[in-house]
Amino acid sequence: MTALNERGEIVIIGAGLIGLSLAFELRRRGARVAVFDRFEPAKAASWAAAGMLAARTEEIADEPMRVLCNDALENFPAFVDAVREASAVDPQLRRDGIVQAAFDDASLERLQARARALAAEGVGHTLLDAREALQLEPALASTVRGALLTHDEGSVDNRLLGRALLAALARMHVQVATSEEIELEFDARRVCGVRTRWGFRPAEIVVNAAGAWAPHLAGVPDECRPPVEPVKGEMLALAMPHDFVRHTMWLGGCYVVPRTDGRLLVGATGERVGFDHRITAGGQRQLLDRVLAGAPSLAGFSLVEQWSGLRPGTPDERPILGRTPRDGYLLATGHYRNGVLLCARTAELLADEIERGTPIDPAFSLARFSNNEAAVGA
Amino acid sequence: MTALNERGEIVIIGAGLIGLSLAFELRRRGARVAVFDRFEPAKAASWAAAGMLAARTEEIADEPMRVLCNDALENFPAFVDAVREASAVDPQLRRDGIVQAAFDDASLERLQARARALAAEGVGHTLLDAREALQLEPALASTVRGALLTHDEGSVDNRLLGRALLAALARMHVQVATSEEIELEFDARRVCGVRTRWGFRPAEIVVNAAGAWAPHLAGVPDECRPPVEPVKGEMLALAMPHDFVRHTMWLGGCYVVPRTDGRLLVGATGERVGFDHRITAGGQRQLLDRVLAGAPSLAGFSLVEQWSGLRPGTPDERPILGRTPRDGYLLATGHYRNGVLLCARTAELLADEIERGTPIDPAFSLARFSNNEAAVGA
Repeated sequence: MTALNERGEIVIIGAGLIGLSLAFELRRRGARVAVFDRFEPAKAASWAAAGMLAARTEEIADEPMRVLCNDALENFPAFVDAVREASAVDPQLRRDGIVQAAFDDASLERLQARARALAAEGVGHTLLDAREALQLEPALASTVRGALLTHDEGSVDNRLLGRALLAALARMHVQVATSEEIELEFDARRVCGVRTRWGFRPAEIVVNAAGAWAPHLAGVPDECRPPVEPVKGEMLALAMPHDFVRHTMWLGGCYVVPRTDGRLLVGATGERVGFDHRITAGGQRQLLDRVLAGAPSLAGFSLVEQWSGLRPGTPDERPILGRTPRDGYLLATGHYRNGVLLCARTAELLADEIERGTPIDPAFSLARFSNNEAAVGA
Repeated sequence: MTALNERGEIVIIGAGLIGLSLAFELRRRGARVAVFDRFEPAKAASWAAAGMLAARTEEIADEPMRVLCNDALENFPAFVDAVREASAVDPQLRRDGIVQAAFDDASLERLQARARALAAEGVGHTLLDAREALQLEPALASTVRGALLTHDEGSVDNRLLGRALLAALARMHVQVATSEEIELEFDARRVCGVRTRWGFRPAEIVVNAAGAWAPHLAGVPDECRPPVEPVKGEMLALAMPHDFVRHTMWLGGCYVVPRTDGRLLVGATGERVGFDHRITAGGQRQLLDRVLAGAPSLAGFSLVEQWSGLRPGTPDERPILGRTPRDGYLLATGHYRNGVLLCARTAELLADEIERGTPIDPAFSLARFSNNEAAVGA
């Protein structure tokens, strides 16, 4: 195959973490790349996320997804190192583990079963009794029954990661531009290019990484449209004293993610309400009720931020990666709740496919939705 | 007595609704007046309030306070008319009544007793059964047992009232100025004037209307310091469709006040935590839990604003009005939860005392706290 640096331009639609990571990966392999977005770069779901890296804590029953998330977790630190080096911005990767707390018998038993499963997989973890859990995380409610600490999970500051990627791409002379008008052009067989506010731009490859907006790109043939739907998540942040909460924690119904700047992120609701992204009374009540049930001593801390984002959900909760019926038009969307975790691995998979034709697991193909064997869930 | 327009300047410390109303009242009686505040005018408790005019709905057991609040309610419309006329700003006075809802037997019985008491006082009201309550206010939880509608209560937009007063005072050439430095000067017998960032300003009368900050004015002799303490109230506002909630309502544990701009104000917490005015997880949870218990259909509406204010609380929850041991130094503070309702009546009482020496009910005097008969509560 022709080397990337000798081929035509690759245009990525969507300047979220997925699109920016892919641009970064392709550029460092020598490709010519440009990124277009209708909105401000890295300010939609990529900005709204909490940046949890929870491939182990989340019990992923779906095997292809479990493999993808585990690969992504292992892949992540090297990617962050590369971005940090290329940008001089530190995305604050933390790999100090995730604490999952149990407040009743049933959840304690689930944690114990989960610990046995992790042991069988050879994943480092510690099962903590109530006393040990409170010692590790004194903010937990004193009714805590026990907790599971995984060792290699953690979080990244997704907003900083977005800024780091933008800085790196700027240094690498990759254009990342906002255009209200974005329309793709196809011929009968393949993608030809993109029309933006600056006119038509031919492209050898166009990758749709537009998240929840991916199905709505103008000019795209129907058979290439991914079945993606926005799933709203509301969030809030508290200001806490240094290390008041030390680890990312699951508290049963909500999670908390400590940031080095002293914020504690609390998330998240999940609602299929279209492109409505309002902060609601009901959503915020849910978060506050749940976080204060799990960690009552947070009640006195300042509520410093409230926001929401639209996750790109798919029918089977797997992302949609790779080829479409039209040559040169690829998808990298549908990452639902795992966009941050999966951004580096997605970039690697897409770049391998683009550079060398390496096939991506068909479990993530757009084609699965037209095949009868496709497991299309709720 | 010498007419006001022939006397020395009156300086008011505190540009909240109390201080501004008094400045307005004195100025229209011919006095020379200036107002100083350390902070932005009308932006502390006066801005944070909900502007409920609830002299009837609140069961005020304390007789002098009950009389003061009832007088204030009757007084209010004429005052708002005068301010509106002088400023061309409409503070959106609403006198369509207040709905108090009951969700269990005990509160229903309390409402019925309250209705009998209002009847005895000759105060217009309607007792509503569950069906009538839901007809009047469909946003109420369907578990509502009944409601009491008073007829002459309502609300004023306290932020607009502040702006109206500022506009009126500007038109009347009354200086309202912000000075970080404010220090009073006294001789052995009386107040002499005020030192601000512009230097010393002699004054015949100085009125302390500094709300929660009233005890902390620099230069004031100890025996003139009012026993006032900040009581934090957290608030929030939802955006609602036109008339979704029609009346100011008490929902058991919180109140809601509809604004003509489509916001629904929800308040308020009450905490004695000094000058801490943070918006907290616990405070906001309390408001959301309570308002959504009383009106669950609000859950889907946007949370558009959250704020807090520091009410000036006194030991017996009465304001402190009038003379102090030093001649010419008067107090108009300690209005606790009733500052908006009481601003016009306070202005009238203070102006009468200043202009004509009309004594104010000693129940509101600073002296009550040094007298043995003073009812000093929690």
